[in-house]
Amino acid sequence: MTEANIPYSLNSKKVAEATTRLLHERGVTMEEIAELVMFLQKKYYPDLTMQECIENVESVLAKREIQNAVLTGIQLDILAEQGQLMSPLQEMLSNDESLYGVDEVLAFSIVNVYGSIGFTNYGYVDKLKPGVLQRLNDKSDHTIHTFLDDIVGAVAAAASSRIAHRKQGEREIELTGDTEENHNL
Amino acid sequence: MTEANIPYSLNSKKVAEATTRLLHERGVTMEEIAELVMFLQKKYYPDLTMQECIENVESVLAKREIQNAVLTGIQLDILAEQGQLMSPLQEMLSNDESLYGVDEVLAFSIVNVYGSIGFTNYGYVDKLKPGVLQRLNDKSDHTIHTFLDDIVGAVAAAASSRIAHRKQGEREIELTGDTEENHNL
Amino acid sequence: MTEANIPYSLNSKKVAEATTRLLHERGVTMEEIAELVMFLQKKYYPDLTMQECIENVESVLAKREIQNAVLTGIQLDILAEQGQLMSPLQEMLSNDESLYGVDEVLAFSIVNVYGSIGFTNYGYVDKLKPGVLQRLNDKSDHTIHTFLDDIVGAVAAAASSRIAHRKQGEREIELTGDTEENHNL
Amino acid sequence: MTEANIPYSLNSKKVAEATTRLLHERGVTMEEIAELVMFLQKKYYPDLTMQECIENVESVLAKREIQNAVLTGIQLDILAEQGQLMSPLQEMLSNDESLYGVDEVLAFSIVNVYGSIGFTNYGYVDKLKPGVLQRLNDKSDHTIHTFLDDIVGAVAAAASSRIAHRKQGEREIELTGDTEENHNL
Repeated sequence: MTEANIPYSLNSKKVAEATTRLLHERGVTMEEIAELVMFLQKKYYPDLTMQECIENVESVLAKREIQNAVLTGIQLDILAEQGQLMSPLQEMLSNDESLYGVDEVLAFSIVNVYGSIGFTNYGYVDKLKPGVLQRLNDKSDHTIHTFLDDIVGAVAAAASSRIAHRKQGEREIELTGDTEENHNL
Repeated sequence: MTEANIPYSLNSKKVAEATTRLLHERGVTMEEIAELVMFLQKKYYPDLTMQECIENVESVLAKREIQNAVLTGIQLDILAEQGQLMSPLQEMLSNDESLYGVDEVLAFSIVNVYGSIGFTNYGYVDKLKPGVLQRLNDKSDHTIHTFLDDIVGAVAAAASSRIAHRKQGEREIELTGDTEENHNL
Repeated sequence: MTEANIPYSLNSKKVAEATTRLLHERGVTMEEIAELVMFLQKKYYPDLTMQECIENVESVLAKREIQNAVLTGIQLDILAEQGQLMSPLQEMLSNDESLYGVDEVLAFSIVNVYGSIGFTNYGYVDKLKPGVLQRLNDKSDHTIHTFLDDIVGAVAAAASSRIAHRKQGEREIELTGDTEENHNL
Repeated sequence: MTEANIPYSLNSKKVAEATTRLLHERGVTMEEIAELVMFLQKKYYPDLTMQECIENVESVLAKREIQNAVLTGIQLDILAEQGQLMSPLQEMLSNDESLYGVDEVLAFSIVNVYGSIGFTNYGYVDKLKPGVLQRLNDKSDHTIHTFLDDIVGAVAAAASSRIAHRKQGEREIELTGDTEENHNL
């Protein structure tokens, strides 16, 4: 039986692996995304560790909705780099056209999974471009990261929201002595 | 020490309890929301039980983002019923003005937590108004459910998305023999 | 001077033309989208004409935000048809995977431009698949319309919202004798 | 005939007037919102005038979708100030609880009307709190602006998007000599 004859069935593991692999191949490490999270959250949680940030980024990237956005965005970046898109979409993506907002639309679908409190953090890092986002926006070589920079900022914002919701849970356990964990988001 | 002097601190349990209590006080039972979920999903999962639907509705209602939307929407319905809103917001809410879309905006923030696949289910039940949604839309008495009908439809759509993501996980465990659970959303 | 040396500058006309052309090439006519609008709105506006529906669809398709979503979605459909996407994105798009929601995300960015009142109409036609949507969902040939069916439903929903906002404006002019047009959305 | 007997009919003028009046009563001037627009856009359009910023803010505030969000948000702020909301919603709004995101949800429905390119600008001003936003966030008196600060930031972001889309139209007219105006958003 050839592969063409096997009926399609979603393989969640392959989707998850492709997400991690593609981020890596496009030059983005878990540590770099975690640094954006630290940048956004250290002010509120002085004891926050890089390990916690990395774990939260990994949890965000384990969500199917977010994997779909990451895969689609990176795919469009790669095709734009190879010049394989139709005009004028090709030109808009090659030049990171400021009036093209589908990258922001995908970013938003990432942030949304952890609720609306992440909107602000996403907008903030997308404007300031700290850390890895600056490198992704450097247009001096031939790489195209029109989608990737928004996606990375959105993953960092989502991880920040996840931390904020969980830290509240921990705080309430301390206050009340209640041992039941309460992970609202 | 009077209550006014206790510094504010979010109490997640109170928020969760108020959500369940208010839905109950506004006449909506978990079973009725679960029936909407069954209406939306039985075609895809013939073995789906009411118990599973109820559990998924409860999990959706345990999310903070969703509790915030439920509390805010029901609060606005109650204030409209009591005639306590300013004109012309009062008139728009009292009459479930079709060009007022803040109810849909809140509904959407509920659906989003379980990803974009729920958009369609939300729109579908909001248009068809099956089961409890028909009763909430009956304008013959003096109750106002401008927000509540959208909220209930959105919670049912979110629970449907949750089921779809989890059923996929179960299917893949069966196919692969992999015992590690994979709850992507 | 070769084309490569001309600095990039967004050409809005080309973007608009590509949008109309691609919809046509993918087999969708303005009349078919207008029929979806008529399907959604005739109940509320018995005098609504096909001409009005077509004009509203054209106005929706003149918006840059919507053109960007249409171009991006159709591009992904075409690349999937040609087998040019990376695995597992290729398989998800080829099979219109129900847990892949980026098509709904793009659809939503279209609906949003005319406000939240269109969410319901989008979900409704996306579920019922009347008219052209049924043909786009027929998986018997080798065409792939994973994005296009959602996009067409969203454009029809957006045009319906546009009509609803404008009909209200006309009604108020009649009621008040006020001749100043009021096109709120 | 008493007012109670007049059948309800949406009065768009009253909605528009209430929007402007309430912003004024809550201490926000058109000039202050325009200053936020200038802060966001002067870098890209050095010739941008305050008059243009004010006109764009006014156009944004003429949209029904945006008026609905403004009225609803300010209403909730006022009721919170008067202590008229149910617990624990009252406490969350009084304390601008950081895990309560309905204010961001409403803000987002405002930004969306002018497309996704405004997400970043909204997040940026909401984090930095320049100008009027700083005053609205000053918690030293008894006013509550939990919704208003997000709303004002969102209106400024929407007006910035409107300017960006229109400036592109003007640029293309200059380049092509084409006199037909092209207001895509």
